[in-house]
Amino acid sequence: MKFVLAPDSFKESMTSKEVCEAMERAIKRLIPTAECIKVPMADGGEGTVEALVESTNGNIYNLEVTGPLGNKVKSYFGILGNGTTAVIEMATASGIQLIKREERNPLITTTYGTGELIKAALEKGVKHILIGIGGSATNDGGAGMIQALGGRLLDKNGKEISFGGGMLKNIETIDLSNLDNRLKDITIEVACDVTNPLVGEKGASVIFGPQKGATAEMIKELDNNLVHYANIIKKCLGKDIAYVEGAGAAGGLGAALLAFLNGELKRGIDIVIEHTNLSEKVKGADYLFTGEGSIDDQTIFGKTPIGVAKVAKKENLKVIAFAGRVGKGVGILYPEGIDGIFCILNKVTTLDEALEFGEYNLEKCVENVVRIINLK
Amino acid sequence: MKFVLAPDSFKESMTSKEVCEAMERAIKRLIPTAECIKVPMADGGEGTVEALVESTNGNIYNLEVTGPLGNKVKSYFGILGNGTTAVIEMATASGIQLIKREERNPLITTTYGTGELIKAALEKGVKHILIGIGGSATNDGGAGMIQALGGRLLDKNGKEISFGGGMLKNIETIDLSNLDNRLKDITIEVACDVTNPLVGEKGASVIFGPQKGATAEMIKELDNNLVHYANIIKKCLGKDIAYVEGAGAAGGLGAALLAFLNGELKRGIDIVIEHTNLSEKVKGADYLFTGEGSIDDQTIFGKTPIGVAKVAKKENLKVIAFAGRVGKGVGILYPEGIDGIFCILNKVTTLDEALEFGEYNLEKCVENVVRIINLK
Repeated sequence: MKFVLAPDSFKESMTSKEVCEAMERAIKRLIPTAECIKVPMADGGEGTVEALVESTNGNIYNLEVTGPLGNKVKSYFGILGNGTTAVIEMATASGIQLIKREERNPLITTTYGTGELIKAALEKGVKHILIGIGGSATNDGGAGMIQALGGRLLDKNGKEISFGGGMLKNIETIDLSNLDNRLKDITIEVACDVTNPLVGEKGASVIFGPQKGATAEMIKELDNNLVHYANIIKKCLGKDIAYVEGAGAAGGLGAALLAFLNGELKRGIDIVIEHTNLSEKVKGADYLFTGEGSIDDQTIFGKTPIGVAKVAKKENLKVIAFAGRVGKGVGILYPEGIDGIFCILNKVTTLDEALEFGEYNLEKCVENVVRIINLK
Repeated sequence: MKFVLAPDSFKESMTSKEVCEAMERAIKRLIPTAECIKVPMADGGEGTVEALVESTNGNIYNLEVTGPLGNKVKSYFGILGNGTTAVIEMATASGIQLIKREERNPLITTTYGTGELIKAALEKGVKHILIGIGGSATNDGGAGMIQALGGRLLDKNGKEISFGGGMLKNIETIDLSNLDNRLKDITIEVACDVTNPLVGEKGASVIFGPQKGATAEMIKELDNNLVHYANIIKKCLGKDIAYVEGAGAAGGLGAALLAFLNGELKRGIDIVIEHTNLSEKVKGADYLFTGEGSIDDQTIFGKTPIGVAKVAKKENLKVIAFAGRVGKGVGILYPEGIDGIFCILNKVTTLDEALEFGEYNLEKCVENVVRIINLK
């Protein structure tokens, strides 16, 4: 019997690799001859670098970059097993989790570190970059990123503007003559699960500004600045990105990836599925086991379990999902390809304990499901 | 597909009948043509009357009897669907749960009410009595019970002794000439899962006295009294029950049922299995679903899930168990006939919530297991 194990991480409990390993232990205990294809997954958010590196036998590279507030932070990126594709999570350089709540201020936070990650990937000679852009602390329209890569955003005095969404209003012209030359030869896929435009009522500032520390007044200023930024881009690059779907992702980093680097915006899970080669790996398999920390009626919106289920169903695999929490409304997932959903808890417990004993609980739950499968 | 649903109750959450109904709803939603044989179970403890009455389409009879402290309490017994077999739980008349912790005192508590239940059953013309004797508040050797049925326990002045384990030392002779005549024609099966003798280091007083409120000094007195009681029984009835296995159950009620009523001590689950006719009901079925509030390494000692599993395995049914809590060490249950064990919880929750949402959680969990079964 052949099993494909393609779970997301169980946040704060297990990485997707650890989930795969617990699943495999349970399966092999009952069916020693079973073939287990471990494909740690992610959906473009936290854990995407690790999952893609694990799934493809690639490597992680650690480095220091400029954090959202300008100080140095420890970050990393991955290169997949093919040696030519890099994978980056912008949040590891410019993420909201890197700064304390009271220091959050999108007027001054920058994506410069994300540009440094891209540059570091270019140094490794990659031809393709995957970049997940969830969880940013920034609202700078990706200005910092493009500066890190050699783009110049100049004010009326021909001077480079400083970091932060508050400075964009000063841009008079864009000079890409010093932009890193290697960018011409590479393609960029952007894992982006939001469809917000750069500006306006559904734009980056209005929708995501508050969670980054913006007050109502700041939001107005940030939005005006992004309107100005979009106008300058249109004037200098001939690209109108103000209302493109997804341009507002990560405080407008989406817009910069589109305008400056010809990035292609895709669903995170689709990028991960493609680069893990999941469609090939499911061929000839009987079951796909997936899972995530929490599965509920939101799982249908591009989360890992539903993404991998669709791939599995093309090859008629049976799909079983495991989670630490199974919310209401999961009935909508069955017609989409998930055949059964199991909560791994084994008793009334605290959240801390549930997270601590995640591997044990998962292994036992998988074991019992495999026992049922094996009855056939 | 044919399912036999034979769960115990989930204590404080669902009766065994409610468990059956939740299981049936889940199964029929997925397999409308499924045949579901509902056999609410119990193991001789709490819920045994209700389960046997439900399983056999019998009736419950409510009545007032003498409680353990002599006051009136509301109680009940059942008559099975055959109309000739009564089922009694001694705890409904003489149980520890009927009195407050600070009032517990086995020197004075009596099994008189249990005798009244037996008498009420005799009034209905039954020929057979099943009696579960777990959870007693008493240590009176069943003296109260036999008094309620017309037996006379007389002191040296020929006067009836009063209630309680403290009075047994006064018995000089036993007069059964007025014992209810109908008892001669009936058989009694006693559901008894302990093997303790009446007296001594492993006897009723030493082992179970403390949980009934006995101090060290009281235990000594109670044990001496039971030794005296056993001697009187031996002298008057010619029966030596002091060290018979199970005689010490329910504060020595086991001894009285043996000595005065020719009761036969059996495992509770075996009695319930026999009188629900489970062995016939599993014939031709594919699956047996069972369950209990908690399943752990103690389940192997005569609990419902393991009892019904053994019956099911004789007919090669697949056996799946559900529980609100799955403890460690359940691995020992698999070789005994349980094929899979699932915890019904769906998230981190409080015990109160888990109990409140038991039916919902069970139904969802069963549904997912049936989905897996149905994949075959």
